Amino acid sequence: MVSALQTLTLDGPFPMRRGVLESPTIAYETLGALGAPADNAVLVFTGLSPSAHIASSPEDPAAGWWEDMVGPDKPIDTNRFFVVCVNSLGSCFGSTGPASINPITKTHYRLDFPVLSLEDIASVGAAVLDRLNIQTTHCVVGASMGGMTALAFTLLFPGRSRSLLSISAAARSLPFAIALRSLQREIIRKDPEWRQGQYEFGKGPVSGMRLARKLGMITYRSAEEWAERFGRERATQEPQQGDPFGIDFEVESYLEAHANKFIGAFDANCYLYLSRAMDLFDATDHGGSLNGALAQVELERALIIGVESDFLFPLPQQAELAAALQPQVREVEFKRLGSIQGHDSFLVDMDRFRPAVAAFFQ
Amino acid sequence: MVSALQTLTLDGPFPMRRGVLESPTIAYETLGALGAPADNAVLVFTGLSPSAHIASSPEDPAAGWWEDMVGPDKPIDTNRFFVVCVNSLGSCFGSTGPASINPITKTHYRLDFPVLSLEDIASVGAAVLDRLNIQTTHCVVGASMGGMTALAFTLLFPGRSRSLLSISAAARSLPFAIALRSLQREIIRKDPEWRQGQYEFGKGPVSGMRLARKLGMITYRSAEEWAERFGRERATQEPQQGDPFGIDFEVESYLEAHANKFIGAFDANCYLYLSRAMDLFDATDHGGSLNGALAQVELERALIIGVESDFLFPLPQQAELAAALQPQVREVEFKRLGSIQGHDSFLVDMDRFRPAVAAFFQ
Repeated sequence: MVSALQTLTLDGPFPMRRGVLESPTIAYETLGALGAPADNAVLVFTGLSPSAHIASSPEDPAAGWWEDMVGPDKPIDTNRFFVVCVNSLGSCFGSTGPASINPITKTHYRLDFPVLSLEDIASVGAAVLDRLNIQTTHCVVGASMGGMTALAFTLLFPGRSRSLLSISAAARSLPFAIALRSLQREIIRKDPEWRQGQYEFGKGPVSGMRLARKLGMITYRSAEEWAERFGRERATQEPQQGDPFGIDFEVESYLEAHANKFIGAFDANCYLYLSRAMDLFDATDHGGSLNGALAQVELERALIIGVESDFLFPLPQQAELAAALQPQVREVEFKRLGSIQGHDSFLVDMDRFRPAVAAFFQ
Repeated sequence: MVSALQTLTLDGPFPMRRGVLESPTIAYETLGALGAPADNAVLVFTGLSPSAHIASSPEDPAAGWWEDMVGPDKPIDTNRFFVVCVNSLGSCFGSTGPASINPITKTHYRLDFPVLSLEDIASVGAAVLDRLNIQTTHCVVGASMGGMTALAFTLLFPGRSRSLLSISAAARSLPFAIALRSLQREIIRKDPEWRQGQYEFGKGPVSGMRLARKLGMITYRSAEEWAERFGRERATQEPQQGDPFGIDFEVESYLEAHANKFIGAFDANCYLYLSRAMDLFDATDHGGSLNGALAQVELERALIIGVESDFLFPLPQQAELAAALQPQVREVEFKRLGSIQGHDSFLVDMDRFRPAVAAFFQ
């Protein structure tokens, strides 16, 4: 079985943690071939913004969001593993989310979409495995929000994955990260074009999304990287006529260019739901304390990777997660990487990440 | 001479770095008595948002912005020193700024105010000293933007202060801090109520100012402090009806309450000008390199204080400033404090800051 993007529509009502969805659709991509027995699957949950398109294939030659990590002879080697990457429930790249039509009311969900949790996203991942007749995966993998979702999966479905790879994630968000995401959401909601979520699709709160994305980008990188990369380099573009507060510095041009790329692609309401789901997730909900919750996991191995310059999911949170897994899991490794690209390092510092991930999948 | 808020209006055109102002007014506060000879003055420049009201006095019993640091028997002891605190040019608490009337056109400056630089603010500080017949100060002091302005003062007026106290400042802003401030400015400008700066006074971009202030507050503190202070404490207030993205967590309530306090007080255009002045300041403009620039200062002593948890003006920048002063200044001390309150520590962690500052003024 070699293929790319697929969809699965669940029959009937799908229970969420705080609500019910009627017959949601889940988009997912598979790469590689499922073995017999079906024991070589790797289930990948994504960060907040990617689609299920994790890597190129003959069926979809466009580069995926983790192109350097997944593919033939890559660290997650599709010659050996059957990789399943799921577009999160609540997202807008094929899976049902606030921008989808509610089959009952025949109108878009928008803010009628139930409160989304990472547990719901984990559950649709399990539903995809069911459809593929995969009882147990070799590994469940995720970075950032995906790492939190992977942890939720191990809590909800003990024994359904033999191992866990969590990258730049945490067992729960701390107030600094919550404040930053809450502010991103408020920036979007305060854009008059948001219209309480009732914007026209393809339009909507473009300005709010651009500003929120810039704030995201600032928090995804590190001061050190930008000091090296931009210093106090002045922008080459001419200052806008009549706007004395336009772009002075190269770092401002960079943010502007990248934010503009993002805003067309992502639905604002979906962004709000996914962002809030990250804040609400707390592994301790599953057992009173972190150790209590993690006492339920059934894993043989876990690798927790954190990055020194990540201030959104700082190292101590990841050390805490690794330590709490220790009593339950035969083999737990905590790897701290010296990348200077902050939270986004898993997407860009491949020289450090490739060997770290490859060793775990050997 | 014991008094509180005063104003000085300069006669005729005042040359700025990039423009000219006609007869600007400068608000300043003095505390303590000037000696004879007049050698006991301490000139204080403020951060971006305070007024000249630095500490209470019989004439103005309200607490000032640095109440714990300045006053009789306090670290900057007004029994010994004559403290002069200047409201920055470009601000809106008595000094001429974008919200003031241009005496030539009889209309508010708004965006016709010339590009503001920290050198301009330093220059009006010198003008205040002239008016007070103070040739040389005991010390020029500032924290945050005020520290950068104090440095600008020592560069523009060599020998006019015998010592420098710079707290949580830097010789220039790096791209991470620039990006954060640039985004704050853009958030304000994108509020439709900003109206290209032509808003009605007392109204204006209230929503943009609130969001920008929240972003400021996030960057002025530290993740560590908030983890201790708020953890994942839920907000006590009821969620707003019909808004699924309201306040979930205590940290969100805290930001909301504090941002609301700020927005009435500060003029949006003034904020934009002062914020950009911080980005544009670069001590190396005064000599090609930091060492080249600082070769011009004439100081007997300097104390540079930095805080470990400050990610807006991180320690290495302050170590760099101290090192660059070393060849020129007989006695340079660099103090790194372990405060967890981030950039704002000089306003709140008084148990660490009081003794550090008191020792310098002994």
